[in-house]
Amino acid sequence: MTKIMKPSILPGFMELLPADQILFNQMMDTIRDVYEKHGFNPIDTPVIEKEEILLAKAGGETEKQLYRFEKGDNKLALRFDLTVPLARYVAQYYPDLNFPFRRYQMSKVFRGEKAQRGRFREFYQCDIDIIGNEELSVINDAEILSVIYNIFKTLKLSAFTIRINNRKILYGLLEELQVQDPAVVLRCIDKIEKVGEESVISELQREKISPEKISRVIEFVKQKGSPDSVITYLKGMGITNETFVKGIEELAEVVEYIKYFEVPEENYTIDLTIVRGLDYYTGTIYETMLNDYQAIGSVCSGGRYENLAGYYTDKKLPGVGVSIGLTRLFYQLKEGNIVNGDTSTLTRVLVVPMDKSTTGYSIGTTRKLREAGIVAETYLEDVKFKKKLNYANKQGIPYVVIIGTDEMNSGMLSLKDMMTGQQTPLSIEEIIKVVKENR
Amino acid sequence: MTKIMKPSILPGFMELLPADQILFNQMMDTIRDVYEKHGFNPIDTPVIEKEEILLAKAGGETEKQLYRFEKGDNKLALRFDLTVPLARYVAQYYPDLNFPFRRYQMSKVFRGEKAQRGRFREFYQCDIDIIGNEELSVINDAEILSVIYNIFKTLKLSAFTIRINNRKILYGLLEELQVQDPAVVLRCIDKIEKVGEESVISELQREKISPEKISRVIEFVKQKGSPDSVITYLKGMGITNETFVKGIEELAEVVEYIKYFEVPEENYTIDLTIVRGLDYYTGTIYETMLNDYQAIGSVCSGGRYENLAGYYTDKKLPGVGVSIGLTRLFYQLKEGNIVNGDTSTLTRVLVVPMDKSTTGYSIGTTRKLREAGIVAETYLEDVKFKKKLNYANKQGIPYVVIIGTDEMNSGMLSLKDMMTGQQTPLSIEEIIKVVKENR
Repeated sequence: MTKIMKPSILPGFMELLPADQILFNQMMDTIRDVYEKHGFNPIDTPVIEKEEILLAKAGGETEKQLYRFEKGDNKLALRFDLTVPLARYVAQYYPDLNFPFRRYQMSKVFRGEKAQRGRFREFYQCDIDIIGNEELSVINDAEILSVIYNIFKTLKLSAFTIRINNRKILYGLLEELQVQDPAVVLRCIDKIEKVGEESVISELQREKISPEKISRVIEFVKQKGSPDSVITYLKGMGITNETFVKGIEELAEVVEYIKYFEVPEENYTIDLTIVRGLDYYTGTIYETMLNDYQAIGSVCSGGRYENLAGYYTDKKLPGVGVSIGLTRLFYQLKEGNIVNGDTSTLTRVLVVPMDKSTTGYSIGTTRKLREAGIVAETYLEDVKFKKKLNYANKQGIPYVVIIGTDEMNSGMLSLKDMMTGQQTPLSIEEIIKVVKENR
Repeated sequence: MTKIMKPSILPGFMELLPADQILFNQMMDTIRDVYEKHGFNPIDTPVIEKEEILLAKAGGETEKQLYRFEKGDNKLALRFDLTVPLARYVAQYYPDLNFPFRRYQMSKVFRGEKAQRGRFREFYQCDIDIIGNEELSVINDAEILSVIYNIFKTLKLSAFTIRINNRKILYGLLEELQVQDPAVVLRCIDKIEKVGEESVISELQREKISPEKISRVIEFVKQKGSPDSVITYLKGMGITNETFVKGIEELAEVVEYIKYFEVPEENYTIDLTIVRGLDYYTGTIYETMLNDYQAIGSVCSGGRYENLAGYYTDKKLPGVGVSIGLTRLFYQLKEGNIVNGDTSTLTRVLVVPMDKSTTGYSIGTTRKLREAGIVAETYLEDVKFKKKLNYANKQGIPYVVIIGTDEMNSGMLSLKDMMTGQQTPLSIEEIIKVVKENR
């Protein structure tokens, strides 16, 4: 007798029962559908890359979290995001690609993080990027925002707000302020919403930043209102350095074009407090908040970058993109009871033969339902009738077709609605109609 | 200046350009759709499992090919198939699952094989299994065959034949023959199609198997013809041991029920030479051949097993399932020029503004096309007109809508058919109609 081992998975990995997996896949399908409708095309890079390729970009936390191993003479690593593989891909196949290159990838990435609630070591990222060859119009930044809008509108999770900012405006402000350590100011801007104005003022004072400069920063981050009014404010700040002016120009163009993409004003806002880490992004940046569940944090983030693949090619490849961390989002939606799987199966109709003499006929009935586009299955096990109905019940299958000898001979089958318990004699054509109408 | 690293991936990994990726995904979607229509539900187990879980089942080649590594205190490994994770999953969530448990999983698996042409270290498996609790009717074996039939019919790759056999018949024959080393005989049966009758006879002689026994084996494997005629032959062989009799009984029941699933006789056959490795399977076994491309070998294989998860639970969980190794299949279809990606994009219509003054209007036009369900994109870069058309051409986008000031003012847009070069003035409604009709 084999020794039995307790079946389990590692901590920090998400694995779902079918009911939740169905829900998860529906969200994934929605995102994919919106990406594809917008002309983004799929790529599927390997899970395992050469270690040196991933290490070219990694560093700090990322490098520590990398899953690295050897096999034969090769040093391997699991991808920790989809952006580094994209950079490698675009550099590698550059002569074969047409630009602007619009791609999506929805795949698992791997990070050996410290295990903690709601953090995952293996999770899906759903990424889109538009990569230009040498140049890429800033109108693409408006289009990316419209894609985010269409995704969250289609997902119907909650009212949502896409917050945008432009890193050039932040850098231009820092240049104007001539502070010694710009990172401190950016960090303060980033967290003002969380810790409040006073706490930020104290921190800036501790950094020996002049009261005059502090009040300019505070006034800056407090700007709310319509995109046009924020742009008017920025233009009136009297900051004339090239970076700041360019930032306003880009932001204004994004706002101008968002109108053509018909993204309602209620779904986006300029938020001068968003910063998005400290490197990589060079222009527009995005965060997306679910209005009723702000605590979740941003559910879709990204931005514009000057050069995607400098580690792998001397071609200048500017781009803009966003990512949805679907595993974490799904976990939070479940935790918050915002989504819930209510059926363990895609099956809409279970066809149940009363006994073995009607099993063949039942199989034929199931086939007709499938041909009509209905997900159906036959209960094939030779068990008591009650157990057959019990399976439908536990799986959450909404309809059962019961077939005994009488039903087989007359062609009038018995349709049981599992919600109401009502049983109705109907032809196969009528059953198809009822089930399709009650999708 | 950063040092530039040559962008590349490891040998033995498949990575596709968008044109082929689109094709690959279409095949994957077709398989998924057929699986789902048959009431198989998705699960998505982690890529990384505990090493001990995978080693419980692994051994021999599999163990050598395992990608193993450590992180923190954990010993990890990448899954090498989807069956071991399924066994672990069913054992782990047993109380939460309803049986028969019908699941599909389409995911990458990893094997550190020796690099050679057409072998992959990371590849997709597309698996379905039906798992029973203690028992599972053999009718399910007929249903699995009908799923294979529906997949390859829908994929439209080539005429195909599903070959079935039953391991109990093979074991029963060996029992009857009382040979010393049954593995030798099975190996001979397995390869007779490849090496021919004479070569097999010599090998059996070398193994000191009596001429009488050899001629029984040869007669056995030469049985061709209708399923019913093969079963009649088997029944007439005069072998009375329990295993053999049970095997015929199961095979006969599968054949009986295949008729109800309406799988045409031209698409399946009993083939007594298929063996499918030496352990694991205990009843029905399947292989699927593309008639016009026999050299590819089986494109979908599997079978019935007595007990799925003996390493992880004392519950008896019999099952039946098949797997499609999609990465390898796709590679072979490409190599044989059987499939070919003819467009680098899902986009059907490129909307091209003549200059920046019509870009906003063009964005609105693209939005209307998308709302009508057409994959469309706007060419947003400010470049020469010829370069814009060139992008459509290289991407293989079939239609371009050209919008200058006149078109914008009149609402009569210019639709260019990129195949014929013909350009026609049409309203947006007419364009939607034309594009939808020429899908």
